[in-house]
Amino acid sequence: MNKLNKVVLAYSGGLDTSIIITWLKENYGCEVVCVAGNVGQNDELDGLEEKALKTGASKLYIEDITKELVEDFIFPALKGNAVYEGKYLLGTAFARPIIAKRLVEIAHKENADAIVHGCTGKGNDQVRFELAIKAFDPDMKVIAPWRIWDIKSRDEEIDYAEAHNIPIKITRETNYSKDKNLWHLSHEGLDLEDPANEPKYDEILEMSVSHEKAPDIPTYITLSFEKGIPVALNGEKFDGVSLIQKLNEIGGKNAIGLCDMVENRLVGMKSRGVYETPGGTILYYAHKELESLCLDRETSHYKELIGHKLGEVIYFGQWYTPLREALCAFIDKTQETVAGDVKLKLYKGNIITAGITSPYSLYSEEFATFNEDEVYNQMDSQGFINLYGLPITVRAKMQKQSNLGAK
Amino acid sequence: MNKLNKVVLAYSGGLDTSIIITWLKENYGCEVVCVAGNVGQNDELDGLEEKALKTGASKLYIEDITKELVEDFIFPALKGNAVYEGKYLLGTAFARPIIAKRLVEIAHKENADAIVHGCTGKGNDQVRFELAIKAFDPDMKVIAPWRIWDIKSRDEEIDYAEAHNIPIKITRETNYSKDKNLWHLSHEGLDLEDPANEPKYDEILEMSVSHEKAPDIPTYITLSFEKGIPVALNGEKFDGVSLIQKLNEIGGKNAIGLCDMVENRLVGMKSRGVYETPGGTILYYAHKELESLCLDRETSHYKELIGHKLGEVIYFGQWYTPLREALCAFIDKTQETVAGDVKLKLYKGNIITAGITSPYSLYSEEFATFNEDEVYNQMDSQGFINLYGLPITVRAKMQKQSNLGAK
Amino acid sequence: MNKLNKVVLAYSGGLDTSIIITWLKENYGCEVVCVAGNVGQNDELDGLEEKALKTGASKLYIEDITKELVEDFIFPALKGNAVYEGKYLLGTAFARPIIAKRLVEIAHKENADAIVHGCTGKGNDQVRFELAIKAFDPDMKVIAPWRIWDIKSRDEEIDYAEAHNIPIKITRETNYSKDKNLWHLSHEGLDLEDPANEPKYDEILEMSVSHEKAPDIPTYITLSFEKGIPVALNGEKFDGVSLIQKLNEIGGKNAIGLCDMVENRLVGMKSRGVYETPGGTILYYAHKELESLCLDRETSHYKELIGHKLGEVIYFGQWYTPLREALCAFIDKTQETVAGDVKLKLYKGNIITAGITSPYSLYSEEFATFNEDEVYNQMDSQGFINLYGLPITVRAKMQKQSNLGAK
Amino acid sequence: MNKLNKVVLAYSGGLDTSIIITWLKENYGCEVVCVAGNVGQNDELDGLEEKALKTGASKLYIEDITKELVEDFIFPALKGNAVYEGKYLLGTAFARPIIAKRLVEIAHKENADAIVHGCTGKGNDQVRFELAIKAFDPDMKVIAPWRIWDIKSRDEEIDYAEAHNIPIKITRETNYSKDKNLWHLSHEGLDLEDPANEPKYDEILEMSVSHEKAPDIPTYITLSFEKGIPVALNGEKFDGVSLIQKLNEIGGKNAIGLCDMVENRLVGMKSRGVYETPGGTILYYAHKELESLCLDRETSHYKELIGHKLGEVIYFGQWYTPLREALCAFIDKTQETVAGDVKLKLYKGNIITAGITSPYSLYSEEFATFNEDEVYNQMDSQGFINLYGLPITVRAKMQKQSNLGAK
Repeated sequence: MNKLNKVVLAYSGGLDTSIIITWLKENYGCEVVCVAGNVGQNDELDGLEEKALKTGASKLYIEDITKELVEDFIFPALKGNAVYEGKYLLGTAFARPIIAKRLVEIAHKENADAIVHGCTGKGNDQVRFELAIKAFDPDMKVIAPWRIWDIKSRDEEIDYAEAHNIPIKITRETNYSKDKNLWHLSHEGLDLEDPANEPKYDEILEMSVSHEKAPDIPTYITLSFEKGIPVALNGEKFDGVSLIQKLNEIGGKNAIGLCDMVENRLVGMKSRGVYETPGGTILYYAHKELESLCLDRETSHYKELIGHKLGEVIYFGQWYTPLREALCAFIDKTQETVAGDVKLKLYKGNIITAGITSPYSLYSEEFATFNEDEVYNQMDSQGFINLYGLPITVRAKMQKQSNLGAK
Repeated sequence: MNKLNKVVLAYSGGLDTSIIITWLKENYGCEVVCVAGNVGQNDELDGLEEKALKTGASKLYIEDITKELVEDFIFPALKGNAVYEGKYLLGTAFARPIIAKRLVEIAHKENADAIVHGCTGKGNDQVRFELAIKAFDPDMKVIAPWRIWDIKSRDEEIDYAEAHNIPIKITRETNYSKDKNLWHLSHEGLDLEDPANEPKYDEILEMSVSHEKAPDIPTYITLSFEKGIPVALNGEKFDGVSLIQKLNEIGGKNAIGLCDMVENRLVGMKSRGVYETPGGTILYYAHKELESLCLDRETSHYKELIGHKLGEVIYFGQWYTPLREALCAFIDKTQETVAGDVKLKLYKGNIITAGITSPYSLYSEEFATFNEDEVYNQMDSQGFINLYGLPITVRAKMQKQSNLGAK
Repeated sequence: MNKLNKVVLAYSGGLDTSIIITWLKENYGCEVVCVAGNVGQNDELDGLEEKALKTGASKLYIEDITKELVEDFIFPALKGNAVYEGKYLLGTAFARPIIAKRLVEIAHKENADAIVHGCTGKGNDQVRFELAIKAFDPDMKVIAPWRIWDIKSRDEEIDYAEAHNIPIKITRETNYSKDKNLWHLSHEGLDLEDPANEPKYDEILEMSVSHEKAPDIPTYITLSFEKGIPVALNGEKFDGVSLIQKLNEIGGKNAIGLCDMVENRLVGMKSRGVYETPGGTILYYAHKELESLCLDRETSHYKELIGHKLGEVIYFGQWYTPLREALCAFIDKTQETVAGDVKLKLYKGNIITAGITSPYSLYSEEFATFNEDEVYNQMDSQGFINLYGLPITVRAKMQKQSNLGAK
Repeated sequence: MNKLNKVVLAYSGGLDTSIIITWLKENYGCEVVCVAGNVGQNDELDGLEEKALKTGASKLYIEDITKELVEDFIFPALKGNAVYEGKYLLGTAFARPIIAKRLVEIAHKENADAIVHGCTGKGNDQVRFELAIKAFDPDMKVIAPWRIWDIKSRDEEIDYAEAHNIPIKITRETNYSKDKNLWHLSHEGLDLEDPANEPKYDEILEMSVSHEKAPDIPTYITLSFEKGIPVALNGEKFDGVSLIQKLNEIGGKNAIGLCDMVENRLVGMKSRGVYETPGGTILYYAHKELESLCLDRETSHYKELIGHKLGEVIYFGQWYTPLREALCAFIDKTQETVAGDVKLKLYKGNIITAGITSPYSLYSEEFATFNEDEVYNQMDSQGFINLYGLPITVRAKMQKQSNLGAK
């Protein structure tokens, strides 16, 4: 391997990135500058600097990017109802590009030769990291140890750590692979690797409780939106980060936002994960309910396609691309009148709508009522049906003539 | 109004169609042949012939179309995961075209001059009925009394019934407007006309119970599919109709399949409805879970768009069109390997996946595992990322040269 | 018919709208204020005021909306490559909403009771006019004489004109139905009503010549674009209106932009038209060529779908809707780097690319070359193919195990 | 490199694959079985066996796959109007999967250890070959010499050939990179590598002439279709292969089907090519014209999206996938009534429609006529517009109340 002078490492303090520090120094003889992104995983950051330095890093940057994560990544996706494969609320996918952007900034500032990440060669995150790095510096060298070293498993990692006296709490007990941030917590691996297995929720869950353990009394909340963005809970203004924290608490308690799925990774295989996204699930639900009042049919139906694409684009790590920007421009335009209040009842895993109001509501009781109205002429339907159905009429006439006949 | 000799009326035995018999005879001087479609609403059909004849009809056809409804309408939609506006499982939309087809057949057999339906001029059903009629006989005359008579409300209907001695059980107490069949029960009107109101589920629900009233003990079931169609429950073979009946019972008891939505009608206004679709909701859920194992990513993602369109097409009454047929041809092709078992846990409104297996599963633990594998070369990722990211690289290089710079 | 005080009429000076003045006064006893929109049809406007007043109008507004037509309607569509059914460049569809907007403004200013247009009840234009009117004043009364009067044909119109001494040049010779503006000229009717007939181009064409009559020597031009908008021709700056005029001249001479199509009208029937759009065809072609250099693949492919939808939305008269605005927001975002020069060879109906350059080109000879390069590692392809093809691999393995086998 | 016993090589007889024989034997010590696919390039196959054996191959299979190419690949795409990036008629993309399928069959029969192809590591064809190979044998080893050997350019190839006495006609004069089959001929490289350069058509073209050299007299032809497939020319029945040959001749003479484009390759870079597809261009044009008569609007518009996707899927080498099969199932369903005659005028690069007829035409002069008709009630439009425009009305009313106002 070529000699390097200095590298910047995306560092979490876990087993993988701890070992990587040593491995980098051993193999490249380089200085290792660590960067940890605070994306709301909080407690994991305590004592991190000490740990990094002890493990051999020359420096640790802790970048607080929680606010940016919420405002520049989560909220645009929320406005688009962007979901991957109908289920996944993109928790990990949001965090990667923003961390990568900081890695490039710090690599430039530190005059580093390469950026290093601890992602496996089988996952999406390596792609998300590297695409974002390419967007900000297409010439930056990237090192992904998992793709090149000889270590093949957790056990071999621990062997390596012990052999190199890497000062971390080591346990040979197996654990799920997890990713945590303000928005979500994911669980993969172990018994989850067989989709035939029911997840052991009571052992797994951390942000929330299982459905059975949620309270028998429902919780009612009211969320207020402006331009498609949540701004208040129960009448009290919140910034985005605090709002999500608060909703995680309320949602988690009521078993909201559990998701178990077999998903299609970008790198071509299916994988199975369990996700907890309590606050996010509530926000997505409420936003869609509000849109049902504020968007007209044609906009709403086409926006479903746009959101479907945006979910794919984000999951695939294409955040910093013209397509993502254009999709968001479409979405933003539709959100100008998405404002109002959504009252929800949370109960043992269920989100139940309990009332929606909007100053820009396109629901018109005047038109919709079963009672007599002043505004709608029922005779209009006849003309509508005749023209809307004209292609069917013409075809049926052609079929008669051709003896084809509708089936 | 022109004199008519004989008409065929889509008859339910309710207030609307009872009055229409009298109104038709009064205004057109015609014989009225009634047709009731049995779409699984069952009990509503008891004593219907007597009622129809007493009210002035010359004849009543009761057409049992439940099996056709399930096999030719519901299952194709299920295979496509076709939903309208992300929520509505199309219960009413399925039933209309098939009834209309029978109306045309009977009108031809009876040599009738027109087909009459009791749909309001504000709803979707008039469109669904009439488009299907046009598909089978583009020259058939259609009469829609609600669009042309002077009666404007339920009260005026009752006045009319009393004035004409129409022998039906009459109550001035108001009721939700309902539509029931094997698949679902819908509720509209009254307090539901204001989206700000939380539905009074304990008063409304008939097929199911409210979340709170569901048992504290979960119910586990296993559904088996072949070619995308459910064929067995808990290992026991069922035909489609019986399976849905059984699932309605199980699902209803566990508060599954409640849906409260503001939807966009085809005729241009928004309306609000509460739907109960207990068995259907379970089937859609299970089918999608199974597809997560059996369909590859590209097929699955594009099929989402196809299903989105199919939901629209069905809701819009376009069942008997080339587009609907072509969408279903796409879908059928994808279902050849959608087979296997889905185990579900039903608990107080929640459907929780408890295990999926398929002989055609594309989930490969061999590829997905976090442990060492024999089949996947992690180095492949590097090449993949470099080429997948090449457009980002090229653009970033162009931006550097042009001093544009990624944002 | 109800008495009206004053109406505003969309007036062209042709037979239809001339008769309508008299008919309106006869039937509603109202004052008729005429409005003609100058959309570049130019010569048709000479002497129009005199004609309107002579025919009974109280006033004529001539609104010059050519610039607005180009900048606010044509250019946004051009940026989106919006076309209807792969062929139609939307000439008529652009002009209607903008005229309608002026009609509403003048109706408000004049305190008129209704807006009147001379569109047939079979066409798209009635829809385009009226949807735009609804967007600006949902309560404005609209009168469409063709839908309500007894006149059924051109001959009956002439009879009516003669009987009422309407002072217009009357000819019983039949003519194609035409619509002209800066962007295009359309021809419908007569022998064109049978799609089996080849159009008699040498008799029909006005803006252009037939292919055979175009010069034997090609014309080369260079168009320059900024942010997706054409700004110069052969190095000389032009405003939008002048540029289109100039290109109409050059294109028309070279037989560019003839289009003969059977199209699907919004009101449900197919119709057949011949369109001349010489300048517009050149602009669309050049813009797309430039985009092939400036847009990345994912943006470009998705933008094709957006343009497809935009073409539909514009054709369907939905200009003043949130969906149209959102589609344009998407498109605008993509055009930021669509700049450069496109050299074209025009020759007897053909537009032949003769060179494209852009400061923001994403074409990289460095990557594309067949010769040795420094930037591309061919080994990356292997990893790319392995992962890109992984779903195929996994499926083939499953098929082997299941004895299914690829076909 | 590992020792191999026997390999199967996709062989063309050109410089690349000739060298590869020697290189394989030198590096792997293996027997080389050559396979050439006859896809209509004809003359290139003369003397090929002798050449292969002389160059060191143990055997040459010549597989005639022209008929399969036309019927199983070209016609399904034609039915879908599948095009890549609005221009490319997929000539090369059609041929690759079918050749790959034969390679696998022969590799199995010959009990070979690997399949070898001569595609560059920068192009699409390597992907198309290898994805198809994976579909038929996911465990088959593939060798792509261009990705691994040290030869970097044509000059180095010639050096290698000379050094190894490879008995082929060698010229150091540079040439465009070409791919030829029944459907098309592509040209890449040299001056074409700069999109600013106008192609030297008079030097490049082989299947056709430049626009200027086409005759001054137009050629009229009539194509007949059944179920979306061309079956006769000028009333004479032709099988698919002969029809395309005949149309290539006629089209080529009239300068039809030249295409110059900058396209986005699957492997991430843009490339520039000139394509000649004379017969294919005529067929695509004629098919679309016929569909304008035979397909209803909704089917036609949605089918445009399906065709757009199919073009992408084929270009991307995903022929043997469930998605491609499902797209084709959709398309086939729509083609049942696509039958009739299309008369075309070919003139100096232009295809001009000269009459379309179909027994299943949905064009109805009865409905479309400007003259009085019996079938269309113009008053229906009013109801249609009121309901079609209801969302606009409701929104405008909301805006009035909210003081938002349409822009």
